[in-house]
Amino acid sequence: MASNSQSNNQMKVVTGEFGYVLQDVPHLTDYIPDLPTYPNPLRSNPAYSVVKQYFVDMDDSVPQKIVVHKDTPRGVHFRRAGPREKVYFASDEVLACIVTCGGLCPGLNTVIREIVHSLDYMYGVNKVLGIDGGYRGFYSKNTITLTPKVVNDIHKRGGTILGTSRGGHDTMKIVDSIQDRGINQVYIIGGDGTQKGASVIYEEIRKRGLKVAVAGIPKTIDNDIPVIDKSFGFDTAVEEAQRAINAAHVEAESAENGLGVVKLMGRYCGFIAMYATLASRDVDCCLIPESPFYLEGKGGLYEYVEKTLKEIGHMVIVIAEGAGQELLTAKDERDASGNKILQDVGLWISQKIKEHFSKQNKILTLKYIDPTYMIRAIPSNASDNVYCTLLAQSAVHGAMAGFTGFISGLVNGRHTMIPFNRITEQQNKVVITDRMWARLLSSTNQPSFLGPKVIEEAKKEVEPPTQLLDDGGNLGNGNLGNTNTVTGMK
Amino acid sequence: MASNSQSNNQMKVVTGEFGYVLQDVPHLTDYIPDLPTYPNPLRSNPAYSVVKQYFVDMDDSVPQKIVVHKDTPRGVHFRRAGPREKVYFASDEVLACIVTCGGLCPGLNTVIREIVHSLDYMYGVNKVLGIDGGYRGFYSKNTITLTPKVVNDIHKRGGTILGTSRGGHDTMKIVDSIQDRGINQVYIIGGDGTQKGASVIYEEIRKRGLKVAVAGIPKTIDNDIPVIDKSFGFDTAVEEAQRAINAAHVEAESAENGLGVVKLMGRYCGFIAMYATLASRDVDCCLIPESPFYLEGKGGLYEYVEKTLKEIGHMVIVIAEGAGQELLTAKDERDASGNKILQDVGLWISQKIKEHFSKQNKILTLKYIDPTYMIRAIPSNASDNVYCTLLAQSAVHGAMAGFTGFISGLVNGRHTMIPFNRITEQQNKVVITDRMWARLLSSTNQPSFLGPKVIEEAKKEVEPPTQLLDDGGNLGNGNLGNTNTVTGMK
Amino acid sequence: MASNSQSNNQMKVVTGEFGYVLQDVPHLTDYIPDLPTYPNPLRSNPAYSVVKQYFVDMDDSVPQKIVVHKDTPRGVHFRRAGPREKVYFASDEVLACIVTCGGLCPGLNTVIREIVHSLDYMYGVNKVLGIDGGYRGFYSKNTITLTPKVVNDIHKRGGTILGTSRGGHDTMKIVDSIQDRGINQVYIIGGDGTQKGASVIYEEIRKRGLKVAVAGIPKTIDNDIPVIDKSFGFDTAVEEAQRAINAAHVEAESAENGLGVVKLMGRYCGFIAMYATLASRDVDCCLIPESPFYLEGKGGLYEYVEKTLKEIGHMVIVIAEGAGQELLTAKDERDASGNKILQDVGLWISQKIKEHFSKQNKILTLKYIDPTYMIRAIPSNASDNVYCTLLAQSAVHGAMAGFTGFISGLVNGRHTMIPFNRITEQQNKVVITDRMWARLLSSTNQPSFLGPKVIEEAKKEVEPPTQLLDDGGNLGNGNLGNTNTVTGMK
Amino acid sequence: MASNSQSNNQMKVVTGEFGYVLQDVPHLTDYIPDLPTYPNPLRSNPAYSVVKQYFVDMDDSVPQKIVVHKDTPRGVHFRRAGPREKVYFASDEVLACIVTCGGLCPGLNTVIREIVHSLDYMYGVNKVLGIDGGYRGFYSKNTITLTPKVVNDIHKRGGTILGTSRGGHDTMKIVDSIQDRGINQVYIIGGDGTQKGASVIYEEIRKRGLKVAVAGIPKTIDNDIPVIDKSFGFDTAVEEAQRAINAAHVEAESAENGLGVVKLMGRYCGFIAMYATLASRDVDCCLIPESPFYLEGKGGLYEYVEKTLKEIGHMVIVIAEGAGQELLTAKDERDASGNKILQDVGLWISQKIKEHFSKQNKILTLKYIDPTYMIRAIPSNASDNVYCTLLAQSAVHGAMAGFTGFISGLVNGRHTMIPFNRITEQQNKVVITDRMWARLLSSTNQPSFLGPKVIEEAKKEVEPPTQLLDDGGNLGNGNLGNTNTVTGMK
Repeated sequence: MASNSQSNNQMKVVTGEFGYVLQDVPHLTDYIPDLPTYPNPLRSNPAYSVVKQYFVDMDDSVPQKIVVHKDTPRGVHFRRAGPREKVYFASDEVLACIVTCGGLCPGLNTVIREIVHSLDYMYGVNKVLGIDGGYRGFYSKNTITLTPKVVNDIHKRGGTILGTSRGGHDTMKIVDSIQDRGINQVYIIGGDGTQKGASVIYEEIRKRGLKVAVAGIPKTIDNDIPVIDKSFGFDTAVEEAQRAINAAHVEAESAENGLGVVKLMGRYCGFIAMYATLASRDVDCCLIPESPFYLEGKGGLYEYVEKTLKEIGHMVIVIAEGAGQELLTAKDERDASGNKILQDVGLWISQKIKEHFSKQNKILTLKYIDPTYMIRAIPSNASDNVYCTLLAQSAVHGAMAGFTGFISGLVNGRHTMIPFNRITEQQNKVVITDRMWARLLSSTNQPSFLGPKVIEEAKKEVEPPTQLLDDGGNLGNGNLGNTNTVTGMK
Repeated sequence: MASNSQSNNQMKVVTGEFGYVLQDVPHLTDYIPDLPTYPNPLRSNPAYSVVKQYFVDMDDSVPQKIVVHKDTPRGVHFRRAGPREKVYFASDEVLACIVTCGGLCPGLNTVIREIVHSLDYMYGVNKVLGIDGGYRGFYSKNTITLTPKVVNDIHKRGGTILGTSRGGHDTMKIVDSIQDRGINQVYIIGGDGTQKGASVIYEEIRKRGLKVAVAGIPKTIDNDIPVIDKSFGFDTAVEEAQRAINAAHVEAESAENGLGVVKLMGRYCGFIAMYATLASRDVDCCLIPESPFYLEGKGGLYEYVEKTLKEIGHMVIVIAEGAGQELLTAKDERDASGNKILQDVGLWISQKIKEHFSKQNKILTLKYIDPTYMIRAIPSNASDNVYCTLLAQSAVHGAMAGFTGFISGLVNGRHTMIPFNRITEQQNKVVITDRMWARLLSSTNQPSFLGPKVIEEAKKEVEPPTQLLDDGGNLGNGNLGNTNTVTGMK
Repeated sequence: MASNSQSNNQMKVVTGEFGYVLQDVPHLTDYIPDLPTYPNPLRSNPAYSVVKQYFVDMDDSVPQKIVVHKDTPRGVHFRRAGPREKVYFASDEVLACIVTCGGLCPGLNTVIREIVHSLDYMYGVNKVLGIDGGYRGFYSKNTITLTPKVVNDIHKRGGTILGTSRGGHDTMKIVDSIQDRGINQVYIIGGDGTQKGASVIYEEIRKRGLKVAVAGIPKTIDNDIPVIDKSFGFDTAVEEAQRAINAAHVEAESAENGLGVVKLMGRYCGFIAMYATLASRDVDCCLIPESPFYLEGKGGLYEYVEKTLKEIGHMVIVIAEGAGQELLTAKDERDASGNKILQDVGLWISQKIKEHFSKQNKILTLKYIDPTYMIRAIPSNASDNVYCTLLAQSAVHGAMAGFTGFISGLVNGRHTMIPFNRITEQQNKVVITDRMWARLLSSTNQPSFLGPKVIEEAKKEVEPPTQLLDDGGNLGNGNLGNTNTVTGMK
Repeated sequence: MASNSQSNNQMKVVTGEFGYVLQDVPHLTDYIPDLPTYPNPLRSNPAYSVVKQYFVDMDDSVPQKIVVHKDTPRGVHFRRAGPREKVYFASDEVLACIVTCGGLCPGLNTVIREIVHSLDYMYGVNKVLGIDGGYRGFYSKNTITLTPKVVNDIHKRGGTILGTSRGGHDTMKIVDSIQDRGINQVYIIGGDGTQKGASVIYEEIRKRGLKVAVAGIPKTIDNDIPVIDKSFGFDTAVEEAQRAINAAHVEAESAENGLGVVKLMGRYCGFIAMYATLASRDVDCCLIPESPFYLEGKGGLYEYVEKTLKEIGHMVIVIAEGAGQELLTAKDERDASGNKILQDVGLWISQKIKEHFSKQNKILTLKYIDPTYMIRAIPSNASDNVYCTLLAQSAVHGAMAGFTGFISGLVNGRHTMIPFNRITEQQNKVVITDRMWARLLSSTNQPSFLGPKVIEEAKKEVEPPTQLLDDGGNLGNGNLGNTNTVTGMK
């Protein structure tokens, strides 16, 4: 078993037959003994009267790795989410709160709505507070009273009715506020940095011995959170990104040597750019942070742009915001969330290509489109709406059942609870040695921009030989290598 | 091992450690010995030059059931789809054909496009024929020449450029045509009935000993095909259905005792109705084929409509086309595909409710919307576009590698090849004793329309005790009971 | 001057040089002498501080007929709408009410919103009541308090927040309610029948000598109201109708002998069908009430359908709901508004064509789409939003200035006030002897379905020789023949 | 009569009774005597068989100014567009060409399509060439053959299939090319600069005495072309701009002191910004080129932003690209069309406001959206589709009838032919002393940013006292002052 306190508190490992490993999540009873339990109120809910099996079996788990051979050991599993037979909160005892942090993402309001509705309709909980404007709102602002009626139509609107902000919060003040207000369920919707914050809040709550469940719902339009299949809002974002790509394509086609450049979201990972490119098929070059590229010389971007314009007469480039950052003059500035402030790579690359063509006295009609805020701010589509609904329900079921220090996440299409440390310890990235990226290269006909050396190195990166990732269909499973780590933790 | 010849030809069962069962698909070498093989041309494709592992390991498989306990045996697996190191067709030897059958579904053109592109760009195959107007087109019409250029933009259009039709085909004539024209790869896109036809075509081809690979891509907007996670076009359909529900909601809200009725697709299963309802949240009652209902008396639909109108003043009902068919006067008519011709249940229920209110001299303003063709005919959205692309690639990889008699399908988020008989032997249905349906009931507040007896019986239906279905997130997994059958087949 | 009392009360005729005729609207001072006036509060509104000329000149008028020769007399004019220097209501004296009647139409909420906002922000009026559920709501329901805040976002929603209903109202009870509640400005949003009702309400108010201004805002998605350029919501409806036409086109193209039939709104006039057809260009036949057609024999619809399917293989028919009613078995039933209940001509014609092909054993794949409620229920687009805003402002300016018995309408692109009788005495119709219809015939290639006799007669219909209607660009000007009537009134 | 040769060639003035003035367009017979005429082929077109009056009366004209008093003189008129009884080209004699210049605008393809279709279906002309890539294409590229089939579906796509470019053309080479290729009808689609070029081309053609008709179709997404009601694509652009405003609103609402800034098109005029603001109602400040503003001090923009954020907590600013240019550091650079290169005012103002808040240590969350290319590149909506169709038909009717040196334009809802000089001599602008701008100020509550002096001066600008512009409903009528000029020209 791992020795550092965080892992200790955040992940309990259970082993079983044929290599079975369960990376379990904490429970209030881990540090508060003798908590009373109550029968789950769902049992008397008429809507659930036909359900054959009201509750998830306590032992249900879901494997992280499912591409197997007939003799492959079973590997890491996560605890399945869902209602439990016994709950650790009486309905009228609960005072829940919800906070949204970081940038906008389609579906935030759907998650908020469903937490409120689930608490009320499933568990009879009617005291839910909204925290105004992100983490800081815990101590610097009044709370917002959330009722099923107040949130009834908010899933049709973009943004978050609670407001949001980045970084700069004080964990002690937050936990003081939680304690002082008597809050005992904390739902935290936010990305990587936010969930790290949630992890620290959970540790502090545990240290103080409070009966407070902390549940995270990971939010990242970039899809950069590991372990889970994909993040909510991602489908909506890819769909909306098509508009910008279409516009760039039309502009490019209508001009002499027309070049449309579209910048899409993706600070550290290029999933939106990659999927939008694969869905659209009008893109000739897709640049993402994971795949370095260079401008000049043989096999470089300039050469490819020149070649494409010569052959087809027009071209569309999609570039993720974090792509090629190593080529920009480095200034290490960070925003309030601690994210590195990126120079606008879309403006930069547009400028560079224009200069290159200008030097050669070649005509180039370049149009640059940055649809970021138009994508982030739309309401979630139907598929994301259903997804958000289930994520929220899983978080509520988990918190009511006394689990804490977990995030609600989809693993291989099943809803699970995942310990904080599994999603904060690394980021999900496009694996450029996977077939999905090869598919993209094949669909755009772009060069790989990789010299033979880079390719060799990329292939050498340590990954267990059984890592047989199927990158199709499911998003973001580039992280099975952790099996090693995990095994080491046993 | 099962004894009937069909299963014999269509499924090969391999067993392994800790209860591992692989339900494998046929291969040309099963009945043609000594076929020559060729190195996979992907190896020299520059787009794939960075891929660490070009090819799927021959032994890769994906489990059907993934919610497990620490001591659960491993159960049924399917063969993973993807490129193989060796192929059984030389590029210039291949003459492929594509046929689309049955009703329209968003994404048909994307699948066609990608089969053509994959064959050309990945495997250097440039002889692809389109069959005009469904199965009958094999022998009654000229073929359509499909090139990457011809199909380049078709994914942006609804419908199918090949045309489609229902039923009434002659297997012998089709196989004659395949043989006479020298076709050796047959890609068949269609639903339940179509895949049954494909299965028979495969059997006949096998009987004649032809080196012809038959690959199905299951198409069903209703999502009624078992085993696979969901069918392509489903997301797009649910999204588009929101428009009709919104309109019904607006009409209902603006009228005195306004009742909006929306009929959605779903002959035998109510997935579109259920997901559209869960995504929209403006629906007060969702009626599907799987959940019987009655009109009169206590707990009946009339009572619920009266109650809702009294309390809220307006109401929206979503009804799947196959719902309540047992209540309509039965005429057993069938269409050309052998599908039972359903009476228009939307018109019928609208009429019944109007009559009921009219008898009581109560005001009712009922508006009936049937958006079926407006949903079916749109192009697929971004998420379905990517999905269709991968389904098509999996089919092509499979056929090139000599597999036959299989459909390309997503299982737990992984692309697999599934033997025909597994998807034709039963239909995927909403399991009304699952939590997903309970979620719906909870979201609409509608009664279950089930008497205590029906509930008892529903719960008693024979299912193995380990059936721990997680209905969340993934669609259509209501078929794990087959584990039994399969075990019996060993 | 006309002698009947209604015209007398509803239209005041002023003549001027070179054939100038002004068909003026009533004013409160016509029957209440010595009303006090107040300076228009707009004068002190900062937003209007830069306006060069705060107020419309009392003598401004707009000609109905503007296609002229150098010697054409000037003809009929309407009074220009807009703020006047003096108003006849003190701000705190006003108690306004708004009622919406008849079917839904995009833009209803925008009109409601803007009446409330204009009264408040421009005129300092903050007592505005909404009448619930149409005319009957005056005496059978409680009123709804309307404030700028309440209505602030309603323009983004379809339908009407006030609710609506058809027919069956009691003028005396309405005027009693107006009198009893102390309402002194009545804004009536509705179609033909509704404005006839408004006209009678105005007459009764005048008879009782009440200081109550009655202003109508004509609403008709069909565009069947004469004199005005076009009705609000029309553009939105035509836009949305494209979806259904596209779907029909895709369905037709994908099937053997595919025929898509789309029914669009238009009880007595085919403007939506005509414009949707002209905008889409995917329509092969457009059938409207104004242009009779027949099914059998030479030059009939069957012949054209057969020919088109033979030549192109697929076909789209757009049919307005009132088209071909003379062919259906006649039952004279009327709805609550007194509108004739039409049989569903879309179902009827689909059935007839199917039978015809069935008799001949010809294949036909017919798909019928009725998008009516999906069109009516959407929010208005940007162009209709601006239009609704100005219509509402014109009505408010008029009522505040003491005008009554008028509707607010656009004439040749200018906002005017039009006496009730001018819009209730006839209906706007597509003039099938105009070039606009010829353009449509030319774009669809459909036959005129008119025998030589009908054409002769159509051409003979009495219209003054100077009727040189330009039907392009502007909608619905088929009513200049009234010039005669008007001349007779001088 | 004006003495300069251009006006002489481009406008023929006819006077009539009661102050009637016709500003007529040139005709081929003005400089080529004894041209043969032919009966209009439309006469034998079956679609036109029911039209009562096949042809527009030669004397039909449309007044520019229609808000009148009973004694107002009749003023300037334009010649009505439409088919004439006689045409000056035999069908098989015509070789037409179409060229598109300048930036993209929704509807370009619809205009191209309809010119080709009208020439073919109405006039039996089947030789139509597309000029590739704007004016330069006349002499530097091959032409594109345009047939009804080639252009059949292009109205559903954005952009222009012909390609476009800016400026830098050589009139002599163009006319040489026209002459050498035997082109005798030239259709020129483009904005202000393009039509000035068309005017010079027409002059040169006239000088050479060629029988070549030159017809312009004004294209300007900004709506900056005078005389005409509005430019095609404008409605579509305003509609699409709503998306960006909505996104800005959502971003602003979800952040602390959230400020959304949207830059919209409008180099010299703010129509899109103004109408998008009026349609959306989510905008708190709209800045346009016509209305100067300042940042600092009392009544300045900073003060208003601070006040709005304090009171409401969030804010949306819409800024036209040409607004506030006088505040930016002036560099007089021009693009290839001779348009001044504007600094990006959206980035500039965002930076300024951020700096202002930063200096004061106030929190500000600013999101900047530039949707320009996403707006320009979409296909035209239904209403613009019909509009483009009629504009194209009017141009074709005019050219066939021997008119030349004209543009096809909508005046007060009627299609007319307007001499080049009337639309190139000035630009259409938002008149900030009109009520439309006051409406906007009233809807946003923004200050006028005008000191008392500016207001005085704005009001003093020379305009005839009868200038009683009704700015409602119709767009862009701010140019009636020309009446003076015109009178002077008599």
